Amino acid sequence: MKRLCLTIQYNGKNFSGWQIQNNERTVQSVLEKKISSLLKEDINLYASGRTDSGVHAYNQIAHFDTESNFDMKKLAFAINFGLEDDVRVLEAREVASSFHSRYSAKKKTYIYKIYISNILKPLKNGLVVQIKYNLDIKKIKLAMEYFIGTHNFFAFSASGSNVKDFIRTIYDFKLEENNDEFSFVITGSGFLYNMVRIIIGTLIEVGKGNLQPQDISQIIKDKERKNAGQTMPPYGLYLYKVYY
Amino acid sequence: MKRLCLTIQYNGKNFSGWQIQNNERTVQSVLEKKISSLLKEDINLYASGRTDSGVHAYNQIAHFDTESNFDMKKLAFAINFGLEDDVRVLEAREVASSFHSRYSAKKKTYIYKIYISNILKPLKNGLVVQIKYNLDIKKIKLAMEYFIGTHNFFAFSASGSNVKDFIRTIYDFKLEENNDEFSFVITGSGFLYNMVRIIIGTLIEVGKGNLQPQDISQIIKDKERKNAGQTMPPYGLYLYKVYY
Repeated sequence: MKRLCLTIQYNGKNFSGWQIQNNERTVQSVLEKKISSLLKEDINLYASGRTDSGVHAYNQIAHFDTESNFDMKKLAFAINFGLEDDVRVLEAREVASSFHSRYSAKKKTYIYKIYISNILKPLKNGLVVQIKYNLDIKKIKLAMEYFIGTHNFFAFSASGSNVKDFIRTIYDFKLEENNDEFSFVITGSGFLYNMVRIIIGTLIEVGKGNLQPQDISQIIKDKERKNAGQTMPPYGLYLYKVYY
Repeated sequence: MKRLCLTIQYNGKNFSGWQIQNNERTVQSVLEKKISSLLKEDINLYASGRTDSGVHAYNQIAHFDTESNFDMKKLAFAINFGLEDDVRVLEAREVASSFHSRYSAKKKTYIYKIYISNILKPLKNGLVVQIKYNLDIKKIKLAMEYFIGTHNFFAFSASGSNVKDFIRTIYDFKLEENNDEFSFVITGSGFLYNMVRIIIGTLIEVGKGNLQPQDISQIIKDKERKNAGQTMPPYGLYLYKVYY
């Protein structure tokens, strides 16, 4: 038995997320089907975490076990051959049988991309989320500081998962600016369901002046979802890197 | 009579270029139809230059004349309302009747985007052209220098236009690097049919070692299309700016 680890890039637009669902086109279903047919063996693909419908990934990590003697150096090329252009295996490598794409992960980095313009920019469409009003970027940067550290992020999570432990650590949270475009780069021990999208939605409220940077402490402390901002759209979110 | 000047952004993917053709979806046809219906008057839209099928524009410039009393401050918003997401008027302003989007243009900047990877990157798909082999970037930069200045660019033009004068001036030609992605930024007095795409195709041959940087002088001098490189695909090309 060999354990193989894949690095996968996808544009989430035409996927119903990572995880297999009946009759939906998902990244997991497309790849499991392709790999199983290639290796003539039913394989199960385990990702570092699900991504929701519409969310993109630069470098999703997933592993599977196989008894196949297929030349693993040619595996990535063989999987990619004939796939639609919105998903590719960037790398395939053998890992120790103790490696687990999800449970061995130490940190993850997500990026959320917005641009500020009252007119939609066709060349950013589907990849960067339009914000139609001016934002106070200084205040947003101050607010970002309050997320760093170990906190109970219940207020920044959506219901719909079985998670019981809402404590997570944010190691790093940076804002990269490029003209009208802003990329939030957040690295944490792990993220709750919709956590990044709700954090960004809350920062947008700070940018609009509806919340003050120092309000973030109280919102975290109060653990009330309604105190945080809206869940931002999926297509601004990118799983950027998983650390092991 | 008023003359209006529009700044237009579009993703070229689902357009058969700028210019009106029977039954094809073109940027000109979509906008002329929308503006004419809005102003209740048949208008003709004149662009700074045609872009081919699949070519993108950050800031295409086009003008039209109108007798309408429509509130021109609301024009861009009104044109954009209901348009598909791949085209937007970024700005509309009144200009002197002597202004002509094409004949008043002094310089234009185009960008051509490539990335070097033996695996297609889904998140760059349709916006950046994949090059599957390593390129010698140092040699490409040396070769770029030979294009700067005033030359007869016949060797770097496709047939199919009525142009008789092949003399053009390249003012500036820069390469911007970002990881595996390279953006060629070229500014010139004007560009012949397919000129940017053929110049980039020729630089790719330099990068592959099939041509030397100093060969560019001779290729220009010989005025033979076959001595230059291939015409690169349209979807890496962006009309970036028109100078007046």
